Amino acid sequence: MTIALVGAGPGDPELLTLKAARLLSEADVVVHDALVGERVLELIPAHAERIDVGKRAGQTILQEQISTLLVELGRQGKNVVRLKGGDPFVFGRGGEEALALRAAGVPFTVVPGITSSVAAPAAAGIPVTHRGVAAAFTVVTGHRRHGDPEIDWRSLAAVGGTIVILMGVRNRRKIAAELIAGGLDPATAVAAIQSATTDEQVVGRCQLADLGSIEVVTPAVLVVGAVAAFELSEIRTLVGSQSA
Amino acid sequence: MTIALVGAGPGDPELLTLKAARLLSEADVVVHDALVGERVLELIPAHAERIDVGKRAGQTILQEQISTLLVELGRQGKNVVRLKGGDPFVFGRGGEEALALRAAGVPFTVVPGITSSVAAPAAAGIPVTHRGVAAAFTVVTGHRRHGDPEIDWRSLAAVGGTIVILMGVRNRRKIAAELIAGGLDPATAVAAIQSATTDEQVVGRCQLADLGSIEVVTPAVLVVGAVAAFELSEIRTLVGSQSA
Repeated sequence: MTIALVGAGPGDPELLTLKAARLLSEADVVVHDALVGERVLELIPAHAERIDVGKRAGQTILQEQISTLLVELGRQGKNVVRLKGGDPFVFGRGGEEALALRAAGVPFTVVPGITSSVAAPAAAGIPVTHRGVAAAFTVVTGHRRHGDPEIDWRSLAAVGGTIVILMGVRNRRKIAAELIAGGLDPATAVAAIQSATTDEQVVGRCQLADLGSIEVVTPAVLVVGAVAAFELSEIRTLVGSQSA
Repeated sequence: MTIALVGAGPGDPELLTLKAARLLSEADVVVHDALVGERVLELIPAHAERIDVGKRAGQTILQEQISTLLVELGRQGKNVVRLKGGDPFVFGRGGEEALALRAAGVPFTVVPGITSSVAAPAAAGIPVTHRGVAAAFTVVTGHRRHGDPEIDWRSLAAVGGTIVILMGVRNRRKIAAELIAGGLDPATAVAAIQSATTDEQVVGRCQLADLGSIEVVTPAVLVVGAVAAFELSEIRTLVGSQSA
């Protein structure tokens, strides 16, 4: 292994995979995002160099700098873990870094992580699929980046499954209006999950028509659909925790 | 903890979470599906009772029997791990078992797992989202169960994101026809991933128009969309593996 693009999961350090934990323990360098929680970062061994490349939305030059950094580290033959919140290939831009590494001839591997698009709803007791209720779910960004293909929200409303929106808090009023225009009932259940699977987890619930007017702290995962009314089990807390 | 509904991930035992591994090591009883791979089952400690409730599609009575079994085990105060392939809430019927446990007053917790809907594409080098290519992905079952809401495949075709189809091999010809009728280019890339993340992994690729006529061994994960042409990194193999 030289470079591993590793998913850190949704926040709870126990939701790292065994492989992620092993690669972290063997790492010479860990390059991580702002989205990786502090409790996960505590798993980085003391001997490993730790590089924070936390970035704000829209700074594409920085993304290129990260790719360049990874290529340089890979060429030095170091064991590098590129640690990303959630899963590297679910809005994690892992694909871009993988392309850069391949173009440079640097070997790499990809280690999936628990995506918050599924785990954040679960942490609020919401199954993204449920027999008789939802036979599909769509994960979509509410913050379209320059060059991304358009999302047809009205068609999405007609699909008939659960809709999970990441990075959608700022545009939530417009998204709700589009989904209602596409045929979703204004009374459709919505849940907003902040800091999922951590001690700070907060779950808010409302109807779709009210999504634009309720307060939601960013970042949050929004869930739209009948399953969003479920409260099956909260797994907010953590190591050795119970819930009912 | 009495009962934990635990995701076992896509196949590679190193893709279990730390929490899943801990709960397995502490379990008195492990109730598992046919979809959980043999190498994961090897992690069950020798002292734990192991109950195989592997079932075939459509046998709803058996699902009720599983829920009844879990309630009984929970009332005995045992440490029970209900181990499911992938994630309990992604077509894992975890929601149904959770409802049964809650109705019976048996405490439970839910532990997310790596869903094969994201990890199987990743294992074939396919990012389900990619800047400029796909800003959404939909996970949908190709095998609609009695009582499930209809999926509007033509609307799904119009959304503009990646489509990941689980349990879709048998109906792949009809699904492809519907997606093309909904506006997808017949030349849209498709990948079929079998036995993802294990030594037996096989990846097939074709165009959407040809999906009905190629041979695909079930079960397989189907990926439809421009990202399905990507081959960024294969993570087929396993502990300590490399790829490029």
